[in-house]
This record gives sequence, structure tokens and C-alpha cells, in this order.
Amino acid sequence: MADTLTDTPGHDEIRALLDAVRAEGRTALTAPEGKLIADAYGIATPGEALAHDVDEAVAYADRFDGPVVLKIVSPDILHKTDAGGVLVGLKTAKEVRGGFHTIISNAKQYAPDARIEGIQVQQMLPPGQEVIVGAVTDPTFGKVVAFGLGGVLVEVLKDVTFRLAPVTGDEAFSMLDSIDAAEILRGVRGAPAVDRWALAEQIRRVSQLVTDFPEIAEVDLNPVIATPEGALAADIRVILADGAPVERQKFSREEILTAMTRLMKPSAVAVIGASNEEGKIGNSVMRNLVDGGFAGDIFPVNPKSDDILGLKAYRSVTDIPGDVDVAVFAIPAKFVPAALEEVGRKGIPNAVLIPSGFAETGDQPLQDKVVAIAREYGVRVLGPNIYGYYSTWQDLCATFCTPYDVKGGVALTSQSGGIGMAILGFARTTKTGVSAIVGLGNKSDVDEDDLLTYFGEDDNTTCIAMHLEDLKDGRAFVEAAREVVKKKPIVVLKAGRTSAGARAAGSHTGALAGDDKVYDDILRQAGVIRAPGLKDMLEYARALPVLPTPQGDNVVIITGAGGSGVLLSDACVDNGLTLMEIPPDLDAAFMRYIPPFGAAGNPIDITGGEPPSTYEATIRLGLEDPRVHALILGYWHTIVTPPMVFAELAARVVAEARAKGIHKPVVASLAGDTEVEAACAYLFERGVVAYPYTTEQPVAALGAKYRWARAAGLLP
Amino acid sequence: MADTLTDTPGHDEIRALLDAVRAEGRTALTAPEGKLIADAYGIATPGEALAHDVDEAVAYADRFDGPVVLKIVSPDILHKTDAGGVLVGLKTAKEVRGGFHTIISNAKQYAPDARIEGIQVQQMLPPGQEVIVGAVTDPTFGKVVAFGLGGVLVEVLKDVTFRLAPVTGDEAFSMLDSIDAAEILRGVRGAPAVDRWALAEQIRRVSQLVTDFPEIAEVDLNPVIATPEGALAADIRVILADGAPVERQKFSREEILTAMTRLMKPSAVAVIGASNEEGKIGNSVMRNLVDGGFAGDIFPVNPKSDDILGLKAYRSVTDIPGDVDVAVFAIPAKFVPAALEEVGRKGIPNAVLIPSGFAETGDQPLQDKVVAIAREYGVRVLGPNIYGYYSTWQDLCATFCTPYDVKGGVALTSQSGGIGMAILGFARTTKTGVSAIVGLGNKSDVDEDDLLTYFGEDDNTTCIAMHLEDLKDGRAFVEAAREVVKKKPIVVLKAGRTSAGARAAGSHTGALAGDDKVYDDILRQAGVIRAPGLKDMLEYARALPVLPTPQGDNVVIITGAGGSGVLLSDACVDNGLTLMEIPPDLDAAFMRYIPPFGAAGNPIDITGGEPPSTYEATIRLGLEDPRVHALILGYWHTIVTPPMVFAELAARVVAEARAKGIHKPVVASLAGDTEVEAACAYLFERGVVAYPYTTEQPVAALGAKYRWARAAGLLP
Repeated sequence: MADTLTDTPGHDEIRALLDAVRAEGRTALTAPEGKLIADAYGIATPGEALAHDVDEAVAYADRFDGPVVLKIVSPDILHKTDAGGVLVGLKTAKEVRGGFHTIISNAKQYAPDARIEGIQVQQMLPPGQEVIVGAVTDPTFGKVVAFGLGGVLVEVLKDVTFRLAPVTGDEAFSMLDSIDAAEILRGVRGAPAVDRWALAEQIRRVSQLVTDFPEIAEVDLNPVIATPEGALAADIRVILADGAPVERQKFSREEILTAMTRLMKPSAVAVIGASNEEGKIGNSVMRNLVDGGFAGDIFPVNPKSDDILGLKAYRSVTDIPGDVDVAVFAIPAKFVPAALEEVGRKGIPNAVLIPSGFAETGDQPLQDKVVAIAREYGVRVLGPNIYGYYSTWQDLCATFCTPYDVKGGVALTSQSGGIGMAILGFARTTKTGVSAIVGLGNKSDVDEDDLLTYFGEDDNTTCIAMHLEDLKDGRAFVEAAREVVKKKPIVVLKAGRTSAGARAAGSHTGALAGDDKVYDDILRQAGVIRAPGLKDMLEYARALPVLPTPQGDNVVIITGAGGSGVLLSDACVDNGLTLMEIPPDLDAAFMRYIPPFGAAGNPIDITGGEPPSTYEATIRLGLEDPRVHALILGYWHTIVTPPMVFAELAARVVAEARAKGIHKPVVASLAGDTEVEAACAYLFERGVVAYPYTTEQPVAALGAKYRWARAAGLLP
Repeated sequence: MADTLTDTPGHDEIRALLDAVRAEGRTALTAPEGKLIADAYGIATPGEALAHDVDEAVAYADRFDGPVVLKIVSPDILHKTDAGGVLVGLKTAKEVRGGFHTIISNAKQYAPDARIEGIQVQQMLPPGQEVIVGAVTDPTFGKVVAFGLGGVLVEVLKDVTFRLAPVTGDEAFSMLDSIDAAEILRGVRGAPAVDRWALAEQIRRVSQLVTDFPEIAEVDLNPVIATPEGALAADIRVILADGAPVERQKFSREEILTAMTRLMKPSAVAVIGASNEEGKIGNSVMRNLVDGGFAGDIFPVNPKSDDILGLKAYRSVTDIPGDVDVAVFAIPAKFVPAALEEVGRKGIPNAVLIPSGFAETGDQPLQDKVVAIAREYGVRVLGPNIYGYYSTWQDLCATFCTPYDVKGGVALTSQSGGIGMAILGFARTTKTGVSAIVGLGNKSDVDEDDLLTYFGEDDNTTCIAMHLEDLKDGRAFVEAAREVVKKKPIVVLKAGRTSAGARAAGSHTGALAGDDKVYDDILRQAGVIRAPGLKDMLEYARALPVLPTPQGDNVVIITGAGGSGVLLSDACVDNGLTLMEIPPDLDAAFMRYIPPFGAAGNPIDITGGEPPSTYEATIRLGLEDPRVHALILGYWHTIVTPPMVFAELAARVVAEARAKGIHKPVVASLAGDTEVEAACAYLFERGVVAYPYTTEQPVAALGAKYRWARAAGLLP
């Protein structure tokens, strides 16, 4: 397949056609117009041609390779069938030749004076599997291509998949496998498989068409008849957009990195509205900056004070000597525009707008005004309507919330302040190592793709987790995500998943929420790990930086509790993990350590009454055998092997393996009395992702790591 | 519809037919035999009859109401079509009359000497929706009836539903709505709906057939053609079982209640293998019984001691004066049979077998021997291979694990010891109120349906949660569950859900795990709440007894964090909850308390900066308005309303409402710093199911309560 079709010979022809259609004030194209576009883009439709004599008819029929329909073409014969002017299902050259003569003779008998222009030779649609290929313009993601099985039944089951347009050939192929009924296309019950290449090509060409001509809002090939020999679009429907799309301001990667680096690693921060008065946001922000230990300059700005928390205060940012990287706003909304003007004049590249009272309370004009000022001066705006942000490795706590200082690998962002507080509480109680926590609020300017681009380059960040209700520019997000995912996992909690949820998002942010199926497919296409809920996002964020990347698919469960083994196996299937088929020699090696009635195979059931040495020997074996790529441990609290004894030995064996250069993900489910909680904390701190009272959570964490490793192309 | 078909006129005929087939050593019935059974059971198939003259042919065609096929019937004409002896699609009486004569005349011309027996008149199958109706014999549940849409596509998507046979008419109807593609049957895209009554009747009759004739292992009506006018089985396939089914010993409800009451509320307990030696199981059990404060008699049994923990010890249970209700075995497996003989002779009704070393380690014969002895003496056996059991309201801790004494409403059982320990640890750390924790282990005798029957009657128990890997008698479980569910919720964690899990279950218990789809449908049919994982089961068990039963479907979300509102809405949809459409007067009433930019509708977004009074007023309004049936609270940690302030006010407002007789379920999601953990504990203890850092969990608990209320018929 060619990678681009923009220089297709029909390009200019389509441009002229579309311009003509728009000039007529139409948005829907006629069938012949659709056919013309299909032909220009190599979208296969049934062949048709006008034969002026019998030899031409035979030649066309031969070219279409299959039965044909012959139809009289005459301006004087309107009712072709009545005139005996239609013959169907003609297969051989002889039949076509005979048919041609029959029609001409019938026509002459029916209307002796009729002007006959020729006979239309049309390829008959073969019987085959009906599918739908289409493209739409999504408010979040722009041009999106869709593929699904056709027919009423599939319409009811909504078995359809989406990708960002344009798709490569590989992506188009992946769509064929992404529907629930994918097996049908491969042939079931002795039926032959359809021509996957032809089908993928239809998808790819439609995706390229809408990319090349952005004014095409929708394309429907419905149905496409897929057979072992090809894929023909029986009908093509093309709809143009009503108006021109609104272009969002774009920043280059360099511009983004420059601004975000100054935001996240500032040398100097100004606080506009800094205050000595307790309870004021401007006081909390100042205290958190100072108490947090930020090593750079802190400049309080307050026209009514000379000194705030012992630091010299300035009447305006313009009075501050030297460069300032970030201006944190802790003043009421109505004062923001004037202060932002000064920030712009001072050349401060980042404004962090904590105050609310903008679009979220209905004052869109005020927000628009702020954005316009920011654009004028080249200031990037975080917020408004946020709690601020933490950059832990800089000891920077530019928020009115309580400080957080457990440095680590995960960067978290949230669109909502409430979710931001949940992030903070969860992180603190679980001692999650954090590189940054950022509130995005109304996302008037800085949004997820800006931060993704930065966190992708930030050495302190090894995992990114984002709560979002909408994406202002889905395409920019996907572009950024695709780059970052190659290096580090991205977890996304997309709120407003369901229709009721989406309605609530609408009333909350005024943002137009995309259809969740589109989000789901496209986030997966971008390699993002989607968390099903808030707690899942938080737990993935906590666990992923702790787990090494698996080097292969072979997962082994070692369990003291047979009952946990069964549930852990269930969880493996739920999370798309592969329970290793244990080779006989490895099986025999495990059996040497466990009682004769312990279960061989996988899970490896070492049975409940075993001493620490059995856990230790089997875990070591699993770590040291190169055919095993990940371990899931099921611990059962007994007198013989108490929780902390297990935790100590498991952590020690894992540490020994790592010292030898063996880095495999190890997760554990601890079933037991409350001492297992301390044992889990001990293990987590030592790189074993361990949870009490649940078999699902540790396996879900491992599953998330595997999903990322696959998306990043790190698994064979 | 009649409720039973056992006295159908064809019953004896079928009995004779099946006996004859088995006598011939066949298990598959021929098509005519199948047709005979279908006719006897009123399973609609295409009409067919032998017409001896033209008037009979016309009369049959008229009766079949639709186009017919005519076929010559002659022992001398084998190739009917060649003889011009078949005509299809005859619609009118005139066509049938003409067709009859044509066929006779063709036949006479083809073979003048042929003996003509008549003409077969067959109803033509109309075009319609293909469906499948069938019945199978499930190893767990016995006769099970299945319904699904036919065709290759649905076979790939496995869109099928199961019920215990026989089904009532209502249950059969419910199956039509239980498939994913249910909408198809109701007519989509202008297609007419099928005759649901006729379809349900096919299901009901098949379910009755396999019930009346247990030797029928499988029935397939495939396809059934469903049309707006009826449902005709194009083909019926009947397979007989190879051998006779094994009957399990049944106990009457009275027998079960008598034995289980003595087990769970004993006056006297003997401990066989009681010991003074620390580290021995017989020592732990004795200590737990004594330290737990059990008020009844405790009789240590040990042939080598006179005194155990200060109590007089006996050489044998037969030496104990007076009645004993329970004998707890803490001796090695090999000594169990002899000791059980003595227990039987002493007339002790319950043996609790802690030791392992039976079927789970491969020694099935030893387990069979134990069960045979128990049966001989009428002793019920709990275990073997268990941790024992707790009956908290009796202060009875007959286990070798640590005691647990937080009395409450939930009874928990587990098949696995490891899961039992997880139950214990979770219950302790969350202070879950428990009525009993019981280990079931190998389930050689006492199983879930015995305990369900007891817990259903136990006044201390208000909710039952069971971990199971298999059911020894699925039908007995469903019967018990259906009764209990009317009074209290049952939560089931079925391990071995997935195929990999099921394989692990097989190697762990030797039990044949049923197909999960069958389990899923039938547990739902029984009104059981199925927990997706271990943690879910534990959280449901903790929350359900705390929540009042909702009186209607109207759920209202009141939230301080808009972001939580969106996620809580998502969770409502995930859990099948209905977000109330707030009437204008109620909307106006809420708006009086919240800022003008707060979002009306549902979720009610009171916005983040609000004082305690706003939470208080809106929660009170939601509780006191009789149109609202359940509340979901979304709390956002702020300086204005700190976590404990929120917890105190929410608990107080709920308590005030309850004092007024208003009992509505209230759940809460707390987003904030770590203080929200204490706030959640405070709320939970006061009847508000509250969780930190998660929007999913509180809504899932409410969803489980609603599922139960619906199953129990408590919702309008």
C-alpha cells in the first residue's frame, strides 16, 4: 500500500467537485458524485461501463470478472424493465453477447424510434459478508474512521470500532480484529475467510479521503460486501461540513517544552495576592511555598503590604527585579485581567490561575478575555479554577492545599479540584512517590497534551496518570501520548464515560463530551491505559513505577492458598495475562520443593501448611528461570509462615535477584489477619506490589504494566 | 399456559418410545421420533399430514395456514422430484387442488404401476428470525434450558441465556429479554416483533420435557423460526443420557434446621485432640473456645490427659456425661474414622473436621469412608480441611485462627481456608459486624444450601456472603437461595469464573466446575448478588447490612465536587441505578440553598466552597422529600467544611431522619486528604456507607442493595 494518496490523480477533480457542490449550497453528494470520488480514491465499487457495441460489452464483462447486469441506456426508454431492457446474472461471454442482442432487439420492438446510447454493463454484487466502513468528524478527535459488521443484528449490538484518521495499513488491519465478531471475517463453520487486505484497503482509503478533504464531514460505505475475492462498496454516501472548522492555537514541541520546563522547574515564583492573613488563599500558597522548602526566589505581590511572611512584597510584578518564571494568581476573578496584563508586560511565561468565577460559573466572556490577554503577551495559562500544582522534586508546593513531599516517579493531573484532593489523600496514605500533581481546571490554555509532552521528557517522571472529563484537542493529546508511551506508561481516567455521566460533564464544564466508544478505541490506539475508576487510576499510578517491565508473556502463580490460586487465575484472564504452560522440567523442579499433593502446573499450589523455605525456594526458582517473565504470589497467613516472615523473605529473594540483574515484575495477594497490611506495605516499599484482602488488585496492576509494555512495543 | 404437562396425553407414549430406544442401545432419537415427542409436548413444528384425496389435501393446507409443499408418497417412487412429485409454495385452495392433480398425473405418467399412498402436505417454513431453544444436563444444576439467537454471527458472539428447568411462563419470557440482542425480537428498523408468547411457550415446553423425562440429556430445537405469527421448530434433536444420574442424599428442611441450629448454637462442644501443647491445633481450638467466652460446656477429649487448660479431659467422647452438640476434630486424618464412630455412637449430631489429608490431597477413599460412617450414625460433617467456624453471638470460636468478636449481621462462608483468613483480616480491620464465619473446605457433607437454610432463619443474620468454587448440588442451593433472598441478601463470590480459573478449580478440589455462563444466569435467576471479586464480596458484606432497603428507584447525587459528580454518575450507570429526573419544584428547593452557578438537575452540584450548612440543608431536603429514595453524597475536602465536620453533620442529619421514621440508603464518596479516612469510619459506624478516594465503591454497594431489593420483590 502507498502511504499517502494526496497526489492521487483525481485530487484536483475532487477539489473541483466539492467546490462546485458547496457553491450550489448543497452538503450531500449525489450517487454519481460519490462514485466519482470513490473511483478517484481507489475505493472499490462494483464496476460499470457503457458499452456501445457488443464487443465492448463482452470486454467490460470480462474485466469485471463475475456475473454482470446489462441495462439499456436510452433517453427515450424510461421503464427499462417493461421494455425488456434489463438482463441479470450473465456469466459467460456467450451469454453477454446473446444478452446484448436480445436487449437491442427488445428495445427496438418496444420503441422503434428510440435513440439507443448503448448498454450499461454493471458488475453484480456477489453474496458475501456485509460490513460498514465510514468516517465521521468527532468534536474531540476530528476525523475518525469506523469499521463494523453490517446488518440489523450488529447494529443492535453496536459492534463497531474507531480509529483516528488517517490510518496506516497496519492500523486498518487491527480494526478488523477489534470487533467482537472478528472471527466471522476469518471464516467460521467452514465458511471461507474474507479478503482482509481488500477490506483494510477500503478503510485506509476512506480515512485518507477525509484527511485530504477536511470539508468532508462524513463518509459511509454501507454496505461493503466482503468476499474471499475482495470488498466492494455497494453504496457510498458523502456529506460535507456546514461551516469551516475552528482552528485551535498550536504550539510547537519546543515552545511547549520551554514553557512547561519553566513552569515545573522555576527559578523564581511570584504570588499575586500574597497575604499575611490566615485563611486567605494567598496566605496558604505563600506558606506552602516557603514551608515546602522551595529553593528558588519567592516574590509576594500585594499593593498593600511591604512584607509577607518575612519576604519583601511588591506592589506589582512589574516591580520585581530579574526574571520570574511563574506567576501564581490568588486574587478574585475580576482582578485577573489587569494583573495578567502586568504579568505579560513583565514577560513572565506562565500564569497559574487558582481563582474560580470563570467559565465554570457561566462567565465565559471573562475567561475569553483572560485567554486573549495571555495570547497577546505569549503567556501560558494553567487553570483557572484550580488548586494549583506541586512539583515535588523542586520542593515546590504552589497550592492552597496541604503540602506533599514524597518524591517519586508518578506525575498526576486532574481536571477537577475534588479529584485532586483525592489524589493528594491517597498518595499520602499509601506513600506513593510523586513527581508532580497538577490541577487543570477549566483548561483555558494549558491542557493534558502540554503536560504530557513535558512529563515525557522529565527524568523524574516514570509514569503519568491523568483524570479528565474532556480533551480540548484530542488529536494533539494522541500525538503527544504516542510519543510518550514509547518511554513511560500513561494512565487515563476518563470521567463521563456513560451517557448519564456525559450529561453531568456537560453541565459541569460546558465541554462537549465525545462518545465514549470513540474515546475508548482511540485512547487504546494511542497506547494509553484506561482506568475503569478513580481508585483504579490511583492504584495503577502507585504500582506501575514500582514494577519492572516484563520481558515476555509467561506469568506464573505461586500460591499457598489453593483458593487464592483460583481467584488469581480468574483475574489473569480478566486482565489478558497468559498463564505460562509450565515445561515438564520446570514443573519437576517446582515439585521438588512442594508436598506430593501440591498441585503441579500453573497456579503452582505449594499448599497452606508450608514453612518459609518452601515459599523462598519456589519464588527463587520462578525468578531465576529465564522462561518465566512475571510472578504472582498468593500468600496464606499461617502460624508456620506469619505475614512479616513471608514479606521479609519475598522482598529478600526479589532483591537478591535484582542484584543479579534479574528484574521481573512480582505482585502479591496476601490473605490473612490484619498483620498482612503491614506486610503489604513492607513489600510495596521494596518493589513487590502487594495488597491485602484482594486477589484482583495485584493482578490488575500487573495487567496494566503488561498493557503498557505491549503498547510500547517492549514485548516480543 | 398450563403449569404442568406431566399428564399430557402423550406422556405414556413418550415413556414407551424412550424405553424402546434405550432397549435398542441407542441414545440419539431419529427425526420422526423427535417429531412424535414434539407433537406430544405441543412443541410447534411445521404441520404435516398425509392426504388420501384432494379434499383432505385442501383441508390440511387450510389448517396449516400458509403456503404448503406437496410431495408424492409412494413406495415405488424414490426420486420424487424426478417424477414431478414435489410442488412448493402452494398458497390458495385452488393451487393446492390443482397441484394435487398435477402430482398424481405426473406420477402416473412417470410410473404407471406405482402404488400411491397419498400426498404429504407440509407447512412451508416462513421467513423469520432464527433462534435456538435447547436443554442440557448440567453437572451442577441438572436440567437447564437455553435460549439464544440463531445464526453464525450469534454463535460467534455467544449470545445465549440459561435457566433451571422447568421454567414458568414468566421465566421463559424473561429469557427473551436476557440476551444482548433482545431488541431484535421486539422488531428493529420497522421489522415487526416476533410472537413472544409462542417463543416463550417453546422454551417452557422444552424445559418441561426434560424435567418429566430425566433420561433426556439434551434437546435442541435448532433453528426455531420466530415470526409475528408464531414460532416453529424446523428441527428437533433429542439425546438420551448414557447412564442413570447419581442421586445425592437429601435432607428435609426440618432435618437441616435441627442439625444446623445445634451446630451454630450449641450447648456443649467436645474437642477431639484437645491439647495442652502450644502450637498444636488442638491447643489453639481449646484456647479460642475458652478465651472466646463460650458460655456452654467445653469437653476436651484426649486419651493421654486428665486436664486440658484447667478443664477435665475425657479419653473418648463416649465418656462425656450428657448431650454434646458438636465434636470438633483436631486430630490427624487417619484417626478420624475411628473417632467419628465414637461420635456417632454418642449421638453427637455434628462433626467439625479441621484436619486435611482427604480428597484435597488425593485420598478420596478416606473421605468416602468418613462420609459413610457419618451417614450410618446420622452425623452431619462440616469439612474436612477447614479452619473451623465462628458463631459470634454465641461467643463461639471453634477455630485454630485468632478469635473474632465484633457481633453483627453478616454470615460469611468460604470454601478455601486462605479466603477464610482474608475474611477474618478484612472483617477485623473494617470492624465488620459478623454473625458467623464458617469454613466449608471439601464439603463432604454440609454445604452452602444447609447453611443458607439456617442463616435464612437466624435472626442475628441479616446478610449472607459466600465464597465458593463449586456447588455440590446447584439445584438445592438455588431452592434454598430463592427462599432466603425474600428476606435477606445473599452475596456470592464464585471462583473459577473464567476458563483458566475453572481449570485451576479442577486441580484444586477435584470438583467439576460448571460453565460460568450457566452459573451466572442461574445465580441471577435465584436472586443472588454475584460479587465480581474477593474485595467486592467483602465490601458488599460489610455495607449491605448497614444500608436500609430503598423504597423506590429515584437516586439523587448531592456533591461538593463537580468532578466527583461526573464519576458518581458513571458509577450509577455501571450499577444499573436510576438518576432521578428532579421535578421542577424540588429543583427550585435545592437551588435555594446553593450558589447561582451551582448545577441544578442531578447530580446536584452545590460547588466546592460551600459551608457545612449547605451540605446539611441539601442532604436534609433529599432525605425528607418522599420522592427521593436514595442519596449518594460527594464530599470535597475544603477549609470551610473539613472532613470530620462533614461526617458529623451527615451522620446527624441521617440520624434525625431515622428518628422520624425516614430510612433511606445513604452512601458517600469522600475526596480529600487523609482525614477523610477517619470521617468515613465515623460515617460507616453511623449507617452511612462511606469510602475515601473512590467514587465507584459507595455506588457499587448501593447498586448491590438495589439488586437485592429488586430480586426480593421489594421495589414497586
